Amino acid sequence: MKFRHELAQQLRVDSIRAADAAGSGHPTSSMSAADLMAALLDGHLRLDFDRPNNPRNDHLVFSKGHASPLLYSCFKAAGAIDDAELLTFREFGSRLEGHPTPALPWVDVATGSLGQGLPIGVGLALTAARLDTLGSRVWVLCGDSEMAEGSIWEAFEHAAHYRLDNIVALVDVNRLGQTGETMHGWDLKAYSDRARAIGWHAVEVEDGHDPERIEAALNEAETTRDRPTVVVARTRKGKGVGEVEDLPGKHGKPLQDPAAAIEELGGARELHVKVSSPETVGTPHTFATAQEPSPVFEVGDAAATRKAYGQGLRALGSRRGEVVALDGEVSNSTHSEQFREAHPQRYFEMYIAEQQMLATAVGMQARGWIPFASTFAAFLSRAYDFIRMASISRAALNLMGSHAGVAIGEDGPSQMALEDLAAMRAVHGSTVLYPCDANQTVGLLEPMADREGICYLRASRGATPVIYGPDEVFPIGGSKTVRKGEHVTLVGAGVTLHEALDAAERLAEEGIRARVIDLYSIKPVDIETLRLAAEETDGLVTVEDHWPEGGLGDAVLAALAEAGASVPVTKLAVTAMPGSGKPAELLAQAGIDSAAIVRAARDLVPGSATR
Amino acid sequence: MKFRHELAQQLRVDSIRAADAAGSGHPTSSMSAADLMAALLDGHLRLDFDRPNNPRNDHLVFSKGHASPLLYSCFKAAGAIDDAELLTFREFGSRLEGHPTPALPWVDVATGSLGQGLPIGVGLALTAARLDTLGSRVWVLCGDSEMAEGSIWEAFEHAAHYRLDNIVALVDVNRLGQTGETMHGWDLKAYSDRARAIGWHAVEVEDGHDPERIEAALNEAETTRDRPTVVVARTRKGKGVGEVEDLPGKHGKPLQDPAAAIEELGGARELHVKVSSPETVGTPHTFATAQEPSPVFEVGDAAATRKAYGQGLRALGSRRGEVVALDGEVSNSTHSEQFREAHPQRYFEMYIAEQQMLATAVGMQARGWIPFASTFAAFLSRAYDFIRMASISRAALNLMGSHAGVAIGEDGPSQMALEDLAAMRAVHGSTVLYPCDANQTVGLLEPMADREGICYLRASRGATPVIYGPDEVFPIGGSKTVRKGEHVTLVGAGVTLHEALDAAERLAEEGIRARVIDLYSIKPVDIETLRLAAEETDGLVTVEDHWPEGGLGDAVLAALAEAGASVPVTKLAVTAMPGSGKPAELLAQAGIDSAAIVRAARDLVPGSATR
Repeated sequence: MKFRHELAQQLRVDSIRAADAAGSGHPTSSMSAADLMAALLDGHLRLDFDRPNNPRNDHLVFSKGHASPLLYSCFKAAGAIDDAELLTFREFGSRLEGHPTPALPWVDVATGSLGQGLPIGVGLALTAARLDTLGSRVWVLCGDSEMAEGSIWEAFEHAAHYRLDNIVALVDVNRLGQTGETMHGWDLKAYSDRARAIGWHAVEVEDGHDPERIEAALNEAETTRDRPTVVVARTRKGKGVGEVEDLPGKHGKPLQDPAAAIEELGGARELHVKVSSPETVGTPHTFATAQEPSPVFEVGDAAATRKAYGQGLRALGSRRGEVVALDGEVSNSTHSEQFREAHPQRYFEMYIAEQQMLATAVGMQARGWIPFASTFAAFLSRAYDFIRMASISRAALNLMGSHAGVAIGEDGPSQMALEDLAAMRAVHGSTVLYPCDANQTVGLLEPMADREGICYLRASRGATPVIYGPDEVFPIGGSKTVRKGEHVTLVGAGVTLHEALDAAERLAEEGIRARVIDLYSIKPVDIETLRLAAEETDGLVTVEDHWPEGGLGDAVLAALAEAGASVPVTKLAVTAMPGSGKPAELLAQAGIDSAAIVRAARDLVPGSATR
Repeated sequence: MKFRHELAQQLRVDSIRAADAAGSGHPTSSMSAADLMAALLDGHLRLDFDRPNNPRNDHLVFSKGHASPLLYSCFKAAGAIDDAELLTFREFGSRLEGHPTPALPWVDVATGSLGQGLPIGVGLALTAARLDTLGSRVWVLCGDSEMAEGSIWEAFEHAAHYRLDNIVALVDVNRLGQTGETMHGWDLKAYSDRARAIGWHAVEVEDGHDPERIEAALNEAETTRDRPTVVVARTRKGKGVGEVEDLPGKHGKPLQDPAAAIEELGGARELHVKVSSPETVGTPHTFATAQEPSPVFEVGDAAATRKAYGQGLRALGSRRGEVVALDGEVSNSTHSEQFREAHPQRYFEMYIAEQQMLATAVGMQARGWIPFASTFAAFLSRAYDFIRMASISRAALNLMGSHAGVAIGEDGPSQMALEDLAAMRAVHGSTVLYPCDANQTVGLLEPMADREGICYLRASRGATPVIYGPDEVFPIGGSKTVRKGEHVTLVGAGVTLHEALDAAERLAEEGIRARVIDLYSIKPVDIETLRLAAEETDGLVTVEDHWPEGGLGDAVLAALAEAGASVPVTKLAVTAMPGSGKPAELLAQAGIDSAAIVRAARDLVPGSATR
């Protein structure tokens, strides 16, 4: 226990030194949790720093990502990084960023947006328990401020529901948030009562700086079965240094007198802690596969792309054992129920908790699984911060949002995604797909599974005509010119592609030959095909079931600008708040149906009124 | 009690009839809660349907918005709408939309994205208790499925923290979600234990169809002091009709045999319930005002726009008593602490719960207050679904997001908003502002306060030079041409405007005269000024501290397309994932600093290399 105290003091000293070298950072938030981490490193964590990809490793997630000086000081104490690197904290080019990211091999996921580490930890624990089926444990260091985030409670609910006894949340109750006291101050019972009500085992540690008490709590956590454990530890922010200890206004800044502080902590130490490794390198469980062919839809039939998604995903899951599915309690709407029925062990019900759904997917992909998570496209907006952070985690995952746009009809605007293309395009490294028929939808699933980054597939509620044969290939970044023409170009995707095809028919009757481009890959976008259309036709009409900003139309304009192409473009999109109604009524009201396209196209073709 | 049973049966019958007329909708989710609503209407709710704006009215929020047939049936029973209108449910043009919206005067806010009604109800209750200081009560009908949303727990936490005894949550525990059983089924204790742990008074109603038990529970709720009350009622989905009662697979669809169902329920009734009105028309509390002038910054000084926001908001709050401020526990970063210190009664600490912050703001504006809610711009993404829904609520509110872009420096990408402009532009009716200096920031606050819809102001972390005098006016939808030139146009905003000005200086040394446009109003955007620039210069360089998609550059391209202007446009934006570093290092790495702008501008000016 003496060693642990010394180790904790070293972690404090190194946190102070790192922040001092950087000129910024969060030493006081690190110092409160130093004793918890010293105990964890010295006898509880099982992490082979030399083999960071050993599936049997425990996972250490700093949900309070701003305590990164503490995390990096732990890595130094464990011998994973050296002191010189520690002092590159927050420097340009250093992998020791202000908040942890997977630039470091021992960091599974990026944190720094509070309330995300614990939900992702639940995803990692679920992966260890139900997919890898290895004995990995997940240790999550939480701040007390972040306990106010609803996502924390989604994590608590799901961990209890899935009876995950392989996750331990360590809550560093240092009482002080960024601007003042938290809602619950040092009331440990406030936290443990909530956790127990939800079904967790809760251990209160009245003195979170007492190695004996911490040791007892961690042992209790490790031996608790059938339920997760939270250790709620009363700590002091800036513990050990009079300049900052338990004082307001000391958040997120280096100490004023680091030398004095280090002396107060007993000076610098060069302790090394031998962190245990798992006994062996683990082999994760794999699921049996079968050569189930993808579903095929007949050209000329009609089918909803969401239905094709479900059927296609089931078949993909049969062929690829690493594919898993999650849904936000709408699997009969997204048709992910098809996957659930065929592969129940690889389907995870996330109930109506979209943030936890994303977090779980992020945790699963961190271990190499290929998650497909689905809900109404509108409700993916609930998890937008998780999607944003997933891109910082360099996560590879697949999202399907169904019921996009006014075309859903009667349910009204709360259920209509009209901002999803903009939101998803603005995620770094994302892929945004919007198929118009069932075979196209199926054809996009395997490329999604094999792709890096966050892939988003927008699906429609209603049935749309099948226009592509089952052998057609749809490369990501491509497009399909589904009708030739040299007067004007109509660019659509999803439901509006069919409106564009109808419009082209009607324009043909007037002698206007419209080219129709199916822009199923909205990001990356097929610049060359758009450039050719700009060159070869008099103008482009883009049409999308989406607000005018940031969607298909803006993607086309950006592509044309990049290509240096100059051509009149008329952008049709939803401009007024819709209500309920029949899909056709709402498409017409929004000015994105075939009649509106015909009008816009006519205006772009010189002399077309007299043609 | 006999009347209440009959009234409940009528509500069921009318819910079935409305869904039958529409051919869609959620009658079974309505039927489970009919007895709760009958009790509420008959003796508890105080709502003057003839004076929907009476500030003394109670508020009725259907957090389970899909139970809209029940809500509309209540309105009919209360005489607010007639039977003919009830049967327009979900028709094109009807105000009886699939999910409730403020198209109806008795609906404060739109619901339909689950888990939002209760947090907004907390906002309404906080408004009644702390701002209006009238005795209004807020009744929120929650579904059990939506209790899985983290936002519900944020609402529970905040209602308890603020000791709101004027809010009552009625949880309709009908056990069945959309696809199957909820996480907790009929375990009433699961819900009440959680609520009690958080500090609510909880009443379990074992039979949520028993008028006596419901009456007792509502009386208990009304007489509970200093804490909110949740009534957890065990009900049966589709109650009263054998075809659907407590059966899976009956969610969200009309009954197959409505005639038989109506007969089973005892036939149609024409009951009228006299809903109590408040005794008087209330006069909400107003706060004293004072003629505090706006802060003034000296041209040539440097100041952070976030700091100007705080100082400006404090002054605006002095002049306008209806202005209120909320913050997500970062008020010393957003500088909303300035407002808090001056106007503590009108400042609301939302802790690290961004969804609840948005919901509270939505509740406050529904009663005519003018909320300004602030946090790091990156963390507004946490509440994106609430912002989306707020636009459907026709909410007028103001959001400030600080610490935008790579220019924040060392904290790293988790704290850098790089998708906020895209996300906020894609909100219907939104206004998106991005000031580059302190006086401009201050000048935009009053126009924001007076504007409809959702206004977003993006603020910067670091100090930027003050370039505008204090008397300059910045109309929303305008821009400033801060430097004249006819060779090339540089378009920036916020931090990049200063990079553009630096670039223009350097270009001038090469003989290239660059026009510089400060596009502080990104939505609506100043199309005419951009059109002129396209006409009068050889090309445009747009530069933004944001991902390339959906931000300033795309706004410019869309404006030019709308204006029919043709000009080469080079879009500079952040294309690679940043790490930590000094602001200047990160701006350079991203290719959005003055050097990058110079290079891009040169490429656009014919013969500039030899100039």
